[in-house]
Amino acid sequence: MNAALVKELYEEINSLPIVDIHTHVNWKTGTARNIGEILSYHYYTELTNSARYDGEPLPLDDPRELTRLIYPKLELIRNTVQYDWLMTISREFLDIAPEEWEIDDNWEAIFDRSVEVMDRADWAEELTAQADIVRVFLTNQYDEDLEGLDTGFYSPCLRTEPFVLWMDRPAERAGLQRFLGKEIRTVADVRAVIVQAFQKFVRHGMGYAAMSIPANFVTGFVSDEDAQRLLDKAIAGTPWDAADRRAWGMFAVNRICDACRNFGRPYHLMIGVSRDVYRQGVPMGQDLFDSVNSMSGYDYILNTYSDVRFPTAILSDTSGLELTAAGWIRHNVYPSGHWWYANQPTEIARELRRRLDSVPGNKTIGYFSDAYYLDFILPKFRMFKFELAVALAERMERSLIHPNMEPFSFAEAMLLAEDLLINNPMDIIALDADED
Amino acid sequence: MNAALVKELYEEINSLPIVDIHTHVNWKTGTARNIGEILSYHYYTELTNSARYDGEPLPLDDPRELTRLIYPKLELIRNTVQYDWLMTISREFLDIAPEEWEIDDNWEAIFDRSVEVMDRADWAEELTAQADIVRVFLTNQYDEDLEGLDTGFYSPCLRTEPFVLWMDRPAERAGLQRFLGKEIRTVADVRAVIVQAFQKFVRHGMGYAAMSIPANFVTGFVSDEDAQRLLDKAIAGTPWDAADRRAWGMFAVNRICDACRNFGRPYHLMIGVSRDVYRQGVPMGQDLFDSVNSMSGYDYILNTYSDVRFPTAILSDTSGLELTAAGWIRHNVYPSGHWWYANQPTEIARELRRRLDSVPGNKTIGYFSDAYYLDFILPKFRMFKFELAVALAERMERSLIHPNMEPFSFAEAMLLAEDLLINNPMDIIALDADED
Amino acid sequence: MNAALVKELYEEINSLPIVDIHTHVNWKTGTARNIGEILSYHYYTELTNSARYDGEPLPLDDPRELTRLIYPKLELIRNTVQYDWLMTISREFLDIAPEEWEIDDNWEAIFDRSVEVMDRADWAEELTAQADIVRVFLTNQYDEDLEGLDTGFYSPCLRTEPFVLWMDRPAERAGLQRFLGKEIRTVADVRAVIVQAFQKFVRHGMGYAAMSIPANFVTGFVSDEDAQRLLDKAIAGTPWDAADRRAWGMFAVNRICDACRNFGRPYHLMIGVSRDVYRQGVPMGQDLFDSVNSMSGYDYILNTYSDVRFPTAILSDTSGLELTAAGWIRHNVYPSGHWWYANQPTEIARELRRRLDSVPGNKTIGYFSDAYYLDFILPKFRMFKFELAVALAERMERSLIHPNMEPFSFAEAMLLAEDLLINNPMDIIALDADED
Repeated sequence: MNAALVKELYEEINSLPIVDIHTHVNWKTGTARNIGEILSYHYYTELTNSARYDGEPLPLDDPRELTRLIYPKLELIRNTVQYDWLMTISREFLDIAPEEWEIDDNWEAIFDRSVEVMDRADWAEELTAQADIVRVFLTNQYDEDLEGLDTGFYSPCLRTEPFVLWMDRPAERAGLQRFLGKEIRTVADVRAVIVQAFQKFVRHGMGYAAMSIPANFVTGFVSDEDAQRLLDKAIAGTPWDAADRRAWGMFAVNRICDACRNFGRPYHLMIGVSRDVYRQGVPMGQDLFDSVNSMSGYDYILNTYSDVRFPTAILSDTSGLELTAAGWIRHNVYPSGHWWYANQPTEIARELRRRLDSVPGNKTIGYFSDAYYLDFILPKFRMFKFELAVALAERMERSLIHPNMEPFSFAEAMLLAEDLLINNPMDIIALDADED
Repeated sequence: MNAALVKELYEEINSLPIVDIHTHVNWKTGTARNIGEILSYHYYTELTNSARYDGEPLPLDDPRELTRLIYPKLELIRNTVQYDWLMTISREFLDIAPEEWEIDDNWEAIFDRSVEVMDRADWAEELTAQADIVRVFLTNQYDEDLEGLDTGFYSPCLRTEPFVLWMDRPAERAGLQRFLGKEIRTVADVRAVIVQAFQKFVRHGMGYAAMSIPANFVTGFVSDEDAQRLLDKAIAGTPWDAADRRAWGMFAVNRICDACRNFGRPYHLMIGVSRDVYRQGVPMGQDLFDSVNSMSGYDYILNTYSDVRFPTAILSDTSGLELTAAGWIRHNVYPSGHWWYANQPTEIARELRRRLDSVPGNKTIGYFSDAYYLDFILPKFRMFKFELAVALAERMERSLIHPNMEPFSFAEAMLLAEDLLINNPMDIIALDADED
Repeated sequence: MNAALVKELYEEINSLPIVDIHTHVNWKTGTARNIGEILSYHYYTELTNSARYDGEPLPLDDPRELTRLIYPKLELIRNTVQYDWLMTISREFLDIAPEEWEIDDNWEAIFDRSVEVMDRADWAEELTAQADIVRVFLTNQYDEDLEGLDTGFYSPCLRTEPFVLWMDRPAERAGLQRFLGKEIRTVADVRAVIVQAFQKFVRHGMGYAAMSIPANFVTGFVSDEDAQRLLDKAIAGTPWDAADRRAWGMFAVNRICDACRNFGRPYHLMIGVSRDVYRQGVPMGQDLFDSVNSMSGYDYILNTYSDVRFPTAILSDTSGLELTAAGWIRHNVYPSGHWWYANQPTEIARELRRRLDSVPGNKTIGYFSDAYYLDFILPKFRMFKFELAVALAERMERSLIHPNMEPFSFAEAMLLAEDLLINNPMDIIALDADED
């Protein structure tokens, strides 16, 4: 590693504003109100639960008490990149030095000081300005209140699990019926509720539709007649078996793709999560993934909806080259960021090089933060930007002696960085398109 | 990276002549006739199709028009190693500087200048000499005309898909019947046509038999009686189901192995392709692979044909350690090159280190180009040779401080490079063997 | 690589004593008696068998003859890390320089000189002191003689394959019956024989229970009634089908977990081996692994036995991130070492970085040697310690310019190394616990 060059590149890359195409930020609040909310992020609750398990339920509604409980376990995760994110928040936003976190029983002082800063009237704006965040894409349920959303900053994105994965749940159907304003009895009703959700989201500057999907999901054609039978069965209260669930998934994904096509919106696929597999896990810390995951199940929609754009994130390292190859030849697959368990330096470094070397330069979406508070966007993007600086510095140095390459300049490196971080995400999601 | 050492190693490695054990070169022409033919290589058509899709069919029979259409999209793939191959061809063979490719609408000038060079009477010989290519293995159908083949330079290799994967297709059987000179009605006829193909190829200095194989292919014993029933069924026009196809595959692979044994020829396995999965893809740009691919299906032939040599290439990164382990303990498995989607620096770097660290030094075949024109052999080998230089430089530097290693010298590094690039391929394929 | 820093770190790490949590050492002898025994280690027999196959059975009971036969093939594996282990043993313990191994026909001189050293009365103690090995965990069958075991140095570990995988074999049941002192007719008898084995091992300072497990093993609940039916079937001599075997495996693994819980001992899982797949392999050199391996099959025991600790080693690279993620969120999964085909620099480097970056610092067991003689512990640990030094040096250098990190000091690097190599293994296996 050429430290001087990496540093120079990093600093230049870091001066780019942040476009964050996938977060779970609550747009009504934006930032955390205290360090306890920061520590409630599942990375900290799950890592400390894993480091020293005590089986006690976490007081997620009492940030002060949560801080008291988690604080002494934090020393066990000091080696992790997630701890580094926390230190960046502490150092950069709260002006609390990392050493203060190493003092025994210092949690209360830290908590109180965090409140001082985070309680400031314009704190969300201050933080956003300090981190130079210019656009944030959200994760929203169809029935979420979007009135008053600042569409110049936030873009809502529609989660499609309710339509695709949960239609057999009475409570889920009840919610959809409330939203639609009529009973859901036919596949036409399902179409209608999807259209209504897209219409609502488009009115608020919709980013895209999205779904996190279990490993080995399969897409394909299912007729309206077959889908109606499944819907009837669900309404009658007869449990779906695995084949039913699979068939409904195929049908409903196609209906979401129809809507993406009709409304000109991308469908962001997040592939490979195994939900609720760790029973003693903290809330949101019970999911893992499966290394056995074929992306061949997506062939049908990728071919059939050739005019829909599919930014795609993967959870397993074993899907990395498969996604690179898809981004390389499929015109409508866009490798997107580094998700969750793959969101650490080892995986980022590998996937980034693969994508830089063989996916067309206009097709890769560099990064998204997946953050629950705006506070996390800066440290997470920094982690990626540093890996990007390392990869680009390496490319510059290799180019000087590589027999197939012309010298790759600093300016060219920065153009590539800008494409990954700003131009590609904006072009691929193409917010302007639906305003035409 | 120690740039000076890498450069020194690279230059020495680059001075080795090229033995290319797998290409798709047309031996009657060898080189491309213009830059349009170069651009017709599926890497360029597929990457530009992926970068900016327009759905227009490509004029593959009109290289000038193809150049005109592809040229403006090339700027979108400038980050790729495939673009670097193109620049090497341009710079080294055509004397056209990379900057000329960045000029808008400059395609015609480039095309015309390419024709000037490529039209020269002895161009193929010039290029071969310039790139120092000394032996090229081909990919040939059983019925291909091999009369006049220069066996001092080219070695024909028999593709075995027609026998193994396509025997239920009437047109394929018709071709085989023409070649055999009699109807194919019995498994004895299948044996006969395989023997006849091997005999023909051996007369022309056969390299090996080869096949590109779908993920999770399974080998095993199938009796003549069962195979005959499948053949009868195919001849009767009854479609094979998946089990039939699997059983025929097992039977026919064994018959190819019989012939490899009897004729003393290796069987080059190329494992893991998923054909025709991307419907909007350009010709030859519709194939992907599956990350879920077990090599355990090959246990039967590897054990049963213990006297047949199996050079083996893999498409998925997920098969990399599996192949390394097979090369490590199985005496008749030879890890071979870096294929297709795995033919870029990230995968080469990893697989190369694995093989250098734990496969016997006489068993790894370093590289093959897979080229369709002789023109591509140089840039592709350069890409590999550079990664090899990086890996060997790293080994030299580590050896100076590694507690288990003696200093690994430049001369030793070069011996290893020569083994990977020349000695091993020639020894493993052992062209001389069948002339004894 | 900052060679000076790596060297400095390595030397400091190397000064740590060795705790080796998994070996196959025979505690009655400990060290090899001559270089032929060293060469009988399956790495050398299998690599040379792979490099130049002759089909001759190896004289494993005649170390001198074995040396004569293997010696000339060793030059073919000089590139491997396994050869480097051999050279370290030769150089450090036997005072035979690596160059002497490059002399033709020099095997007898080497053999004789090895005997001179290895025959010394206190050789095992000398070597142990020289390598600074302070604790060695063994691999033992339930019926192995443990009387006289030095529990201040050795910890016996109970292999559980006989109970879980082999209960349908009459000879295996006969052995278990002899050990139990009564016939095994009921699942209560199976419980009893497991308890008896644990009681015996605990009396000798038991480390843990262990098992090497085929790919895609599945755990789950099986009732005593169903298990009794399977046992009856096995006793009646009716072969188990795949479903029977799977069900028995589930039942019996749960019974081992019961015992681990009751005796406060961990269960070391070694996941992913494919036994006896290479027919021409040397003894112990016939096993491979499958890259298609889901760890989801372990969800049941990991959740149900939440109070049992599961150090876990994996064989396939494709399970690497899956194990990291499990160690990251599951409180009772501890990523353990780098096993067999994954025990070489490429895999170690990747898994180590993953674990350092996202598994709590108290949860990773750095390394185990898997050695058959004490002699191998030093070279294998050195290999790991070097990779660890490289990773820590990289972390130190990155920390100086990383925007999320405080400078990571030499002292902090050493604390992490000590955790991985000494504190974590001792705390996780917690030998003291069962003496309370």
